[in-house]
Amino acid sequence: MHSISHYQELISDYFSELHLTKEPKNLYNPIDYILSLGGKRMRPILTLMATEVFDVDCKKSLAAATAIEIFHNFSLVHDDIMDDAPLRRGNETVHEKWNINTGILSGDAMLILAYQHFEEYEPNIFRDLAKLFSKTALEVCEGQQYDVDFETRDDVTIPEYLKMIEYKTAVLVGAAMKMGAIVAKTSDENANLIYDFGLNLGIAFQLQDDYLDAFGNPETFGKQVGGDIIENKKTYLYLKAIEFAQTEEKEQLLHLFSIQPTDNTDKIDSVKEIFNQTKASEATQKAIQDYTFKAFETLEKMNVSDEKKEILRTFGENLMSRNV
Amino acid sequence: MHSISHYQELISDYFSELHLTKEPKNLYNPIDYILSLGGKRMRPILTLMATEVFDVDCKKSLAAATAIEIFHNFSLVHDDIMDDAPLRRGNETVHEKWNINTGILSGDAMLILAYQHFEEYEPNIFRDLAKLFSKTALEVCEGQQYDVDFETRDDVTIPEYLKMIEYKTAVLVGAAMKMGAIVAKTSDENANLIYDFGLNLGIAFQLQDDYLDAFGNPETFGKQVGGDIIENKKTYLYLKAIEFAQTEEKEQLLHLFSIQPTDNTDKIDSVKEIFNQTKASEATQKAIQDYTFKAFETLEKMNVSDEKKEILRTFGENLMSRNV
Repeated sequence: MHSISHYQELISDYFSELHLTKEPKNLYNPIDYILSLGGKRMRPILTLMATEVFDVDCKKSLAAATAIEIFHNFSLVHDDIMDDAPLRRGNETVHEKWNINTGILSGDAMLILAYQHFEEYEPNIFRDLAKLFSKTALEVCEGQQYDVDFETRDDVTIPEYLKMIEYKTAVLVGAAMKMGAIVAKTSDENANLIYDFGLNLGIAFQLQDDYLDAFGNPETFGKQVGGDIIENKKTYLYLKAIEFAQTEEKEQLLHLFSIQPTDNTDKIDSVKEIFNQTKASEATQKAIQDYTFKAFETLEKMNVSDEKKEILRTFGENLMSRNV
Repeated sequence: MHSISHYQELISDYFSELHLTKEPKNLYNPIDYILSLGGKRMRPILTLMATEVFDVDCKKSLAAATAIEIFHNFSLVHDDIMDDAPLRRGNETVHEKWNINTGILSGDAMLILAYQHFEEYEPNIFRDLAKLFSKTALEVCEGQQYDVDFETRDDVTIPEYLKMIEYKTAVLVGAAMKMGAIVAKTSDENANLIYDFGLNLGIAFQLQDDYLDAFGNPETFGKQVGGDIIENKKTYLYLKAIEFAQTEEKEQLLHLFSIQPTDNTDKIDSVKEIFNQTKASEATQKAIQDYTFKAFETLEKMNVSDEKKEILRTFGENLMSRNV
C-alpha cells in the first residue's frame, strides 16, 4: 500500500495530462480553473486505495478516480450557483469569476466529462462503473434538493436529515471506494462491504462536521466556527436539541433561530449552551461514534488480509480525528 | 416500417411508464412537467426508424430513444435559463414556473437519467451507446458555448457558424439515428452512414430555420417571422450578406443590426431587402440544398434495400418541406 501523498501525486500527475484547455475556451477554462484549485482529493484517493486493498495496481483505477473528482467539482460549481457562494477553496467561485451561465454550462460539460473517463475500461467494467456512477450522481442531486427543501420546512425529522446527508455527501464516498473495488474485480460481496464502509464513514464525517461547526477549534476547523448557527441551519445538533428540549428551552432555541443579529457572539453562545443543556451535543457525539463503529464493523466482514483491514481502519481513524 | 404516428404512440406509451413523479417532488415534478409538454419527438422517432431500417424491431431502441429525448429536454431547460426565456412550447419554462435553482438541479438530474436508460442494454451495446452519447452531449455544450460567444463577436466566419449549428443541433440528430443502428447491431459502416445522413439533414434543417425566420410564412412557421432580425442574430443569412455586400449595403446592414427600434417593421423589411439584393437569400437556399443533397447521397452508400432508402429519403423530404 502507498502513502496518501503518493496517491495525491499520482492524481496530480494524471490531472495535469487531462488537456482541458481546449476550444471553446469559455467552456473549458472554467473547468480547468476549478479542478486546479485542488482540495484534498479525498474521494479519488479512496478509489486508488480501495483498488490496492484488493491487491491490484492502483494506477488501474486512476480514470475512475478522476471521474469521481470531476463529478465532485461539477457538484461544487452548480451548488455554489444555487447557494450564491462567492468563494470556494479561498478563491472566486466559477460563476463569480465568469458568470452564472458559464457556471451552468461548464458544470454540464464536467458531468459529461466524468462519464467519459469510464471509457478507459472494458465493456463489463465500464457498465458497472457507469451504472454505479449514475445511481450515485442522481442520489447526490436528490440530497441537494432535500437540503434546499429543508431550509423552508420546520418539521424535518432526524431520519430525513440523515437521509439527506447520506445522499448529498456519503454515497459519493461509498461509490468512490466501490469503484476501486470494481476496477480490481473483487467479489460483489467485498465491493458492497467497502461501499458500506465508505458510506458510514461519510455519514460520521458529515455529522462530525455539524458538531465541529459549533464546537470545533477555530484555529484548526478551517471554516468559521458557528457558521451554521449564524445561518440558522437545521443540523443534527439543532434537530436533536429540539427533540430533547423542555418547552422553555425549545421556545428560546426557536427564537434564536429566527433572528439575524449584526453581532452573532451572544447568539452563538446561547445556542451552544442549549445544545449542551439538552444533551444534543452528547447525542451527536454518540451518533458520530455509532456510524464510525458501523464502518469499522463492515471492515471485519471483508475478505482481505488483516493488514489491509488495519490500513483502512487507520485511514478512517485519521479522517475522523481530522489528521488527513 | 411503421408510420410516424405509430412511433409517436410507442414513445408516448413508453414515457407514461417512466414514473417520474417520485421524491423529492421539487426535483422530479419539473422533469415530468417539461417532458409532458411534448413537442414532435423528432429525435426519438429517428432512433426507432433507424432500428427498423436495419430490420430490427423498433421497440428494442425505445430506451435509447428515450435517453435522446430526455437529453434534448435537459438542454432546453438549461438553455432557457441562459437565454432568460419565459416560454417553451407555449408554456412557462421550468425556471419561470419554479426558479433558476430548480431549473439547474432538475436539468442535472435529467442528464443523469438519460444515461440510465442505456442500462437496458448488454455491456457492449451499453458502452457504444454511452460513448456516442457522451461525445455528442459534449459537442452540444460546445455548440451552445460558441453560440453564446458569437453574440459578442463581429468576426464570425461562415465555417465557424456552420460548426456551431452542427454541434448545437445536428450532431444530436446524427447520434439519434446512429443509436438506432447500434441497437440493431448493423455494420459500423452503415451506422456511420446513417449518422452522416442525420448530421447533414440536421444542418440543412437548421439553415432552413435561419432562412424561414426571415422569409417564412407567418401562418405556418410557428415562430415570429423576423425574430432573428429583431434580436440582431448573426445567422447564415446575415453572415452571407456581410460577405457579399458592397460597402454601402454593408454599412447599412451593420447599422440596422446595431439598433433596437420599438416598431421593427421597417427594420425587418430593410434587412430582408439587403438579404435579397446581396443574394444572401439565394446562397442560403443553395446551402440548404447542398446539405440535403449530401444527406441523400450518403443514403445511396448504405447497405440496405432500396425500399428502406426510399423511406428515409421521403422522411427527409417531408422534414425539409416542413410537413412532419
